[in-house]
Amino acid sequence: MHTYLRQIQNTLKTDYSKYKETFATVMTSNVVLIDKITKYIVRHKGKGLRPLLVLLSARLLGNPNESTYLVATIVELLHTATLVHDDVVDNAQVRRSFPSINAIWKNKISVLMGDYLLSKSLIAATQIGNIEIMHILAETAKRLSKGELFQIEKSRKLDIMEEEYYQLISDKTAALIAACCELGSITVSNNSEDRKNLRTYGENLGIAFQIKDDLLDYEGSQSVLGKPVGADLKEKKITLPLIMSFKNAPAKDKKTIIKLLKKGVDRGDIKKIVSFCEEYGGLNSAQDAALHFAQKAKDSIIGYSDGPYLRSAKLFVDYVISRKR
Amino acid sequence: MHTYLRQIQNTLKTDYSKYKETFATVMTSNVVLIDKITKYIVRHKGKGLRPLLVLLSARLLGNPNESTYLVATIVELLHTATLVHDDVVDNAQVRRSFPSINAIWKNKISVLMGDYLLSKSLIAATQIGNIEIMHILAETAKRLSKGELFQIEKSRKLDIMEEEYYQLISDKTAALIAACCELGSITVSNNSEDRKNLRTYGENLGIAFQIKDDLLDYEGSQSVLGKPVGADLKEKKITLPLIMSFKNAPAKDKKTIIKLLKKGVDRGDIKKIVSFCEEYGGLNSAQDAALHFAQKAKDSIIGYSDGPYLRSAKLFVDYVISRKR
Repeated sequence: MHTYLRQIQNTLKTDYSKYKETFATVMTSNVVLIDKITKYIVRHKGKGLRPLLVLLSARLLGNPNESTYLVATIVELLHTATLVHDDVVDNAQVRRSFPSINAIWKNKISVLMGDYLLSKSLIAATQIGNIEIMHILAETAKRLSKGELFQIEKSRKLDIMEEEYYQLISDKTAALIAACCELGSITVSNNSEDRKNLRTYGENLGIAFQIKDDLLDYEGSQSVLGKPVGADLKEKKITLPLIMSFKNAPAKDKKTIIKLLKKGVDRGDIKKIVSFCEEYGGLNSAQDAALHFAQKAKDSIIGYSDGPYLRSAKLFVDYVISRKR
Repeated sequence: MHTYLRQIQNTLKTDYSKYKETFATVMTSNVVLIDKITKYIVRHKGKGLRPLLVLLSARLLGNPNESTYLVATIVELLHTATLVHDDVVDNAQVRRSFPSINAIWKNKISVLMGDYLLSKSLIAATQIGNIEIMHILAETAKRLSKGELFQIEKSRKLDIMEEEYYQLISDKTAALIAACCELGSITVSNNSEDRKNLRTYGENLGIAFQIKDDLLDYEGSQSVLGKPVGADLKEKKITLPLIMSFKNAPAKDKKTIIKLLKKGVDRGDIKKIVSFCEEYGGLNSAQDAALHFAQKAKDSIIGYSDGPYLRSAKLFVDYVISRKR
């Protein structure tokens, strides 16, 4: 576990336990198959970054309440729903170093289980009784699927531009992280300025997060990542390191890389593409971009009074760009 | 087109045009791929039964308004989203006599497109600003996926009981039809009695609808249905005709049929199973059950004053049980 993340978790320990209680209450069903899959998901759960961001955003402005814990549950359910569908979409066999839901239960069940989790998330949201919260969630869900569809469109044509890349990661990743922070703030504050600040924090944090994620596909190691390196390249996903390298590379070299992607890359090709990105500065440029958005995230919460929660919010940014997985 | 359905459509002509306008307004996007698929869906749209039920329920109690047309749009989007996912789940290549979305764009895109349509549906719902409506929709979406998951669980074990069958079709089909009628009523009336009556009408209508659907898988013809006969049996889905036949058949004959289903049925097997259901009264029993729920649907709206809308609501019931596809 990354030390920064452990520090953040310690700061939010009590709140996190309360969120976990709420999560367990929400997830009950009378269908054996659903319970089995739910248990598997809970056993192999992720780092809980999104619930942590909800709790942290609320703590930055006031004291979390039942709605805060419910929102933390809702975003985790929504996130899990999209992961289950994404693994179907990407035909991913491994998630968090364990077999994915589709690897075990096949695509049919995974599609329906994703739908089920999404519905559970929305039902929990109606409990809060705030239509604004419902709107943010529905809009976020739309951006998540829209982003993924846009990504497929682009990977087919292999022609994504820098601007389109930012639109794409803003939809597929930053939208939900921004929603976590905005929703966390709404549960404790009526101030629209607070809401805007936290949303900006989340949006920039989310963009930095995805750039780092895309970098890890080039620089990470499989044993640490819990999934193979170069997975994006296999899927013909052109991310920032390659986009930035294409800007500097001679047209001839760019063509060679595009050809490799078109035919489908093997291990050797992945190494070649990583070297290409090193040579033409794509890895450095992407790293700089991640740092740029990380700074913007920090700047958006500069006005809040110092203390363990502000420090955690800043540390969260540092965690996102320094993590190895 | 079935004459009853044409009559109902004529009665609701003006309202239906307004609903279609609202639908077109809601469905706009800036992603080429999404627009392409949306156009394909609209071109090969279904009979619009669910929007019609929303409009009819509202007309039975008062005058439809913007919320009514929006609700009609929402239920059609939700329904389309589930159809897109169901075709992935069932690996169906044909829908409404045309290639299914997954047949053209493959599973990846179909999963995401389903998610996108569901989100669009929920975003439209937040526009109405009524949290009760949101709750009904989220609960309905949950029941749809829960029903399908339960069906998979049962088809694996080939051991569904009559009671479980009713639970299943109530979730996977009647839930949405009941929601259509309940939501239609909510948009024009605050009376909880009205709401309950319309919901009961929809629930029973939905059960009759699914029993008839399951019967058509035995009795229909491919050219009229727009999909192959015996599709359920191929999917190892045991529906009411077979459940009722199993009750009357000798254990030995039941075992033979179960064996056929286990190994996977071909055309000859389907004919055998249909004969089996004729012999042991399963087709008649299922027909009787459909009529029983149809009557219950009619009974639940008995108190409303006579006129074109009440007549249409009754005609809708007759349509559902007399249709050939």
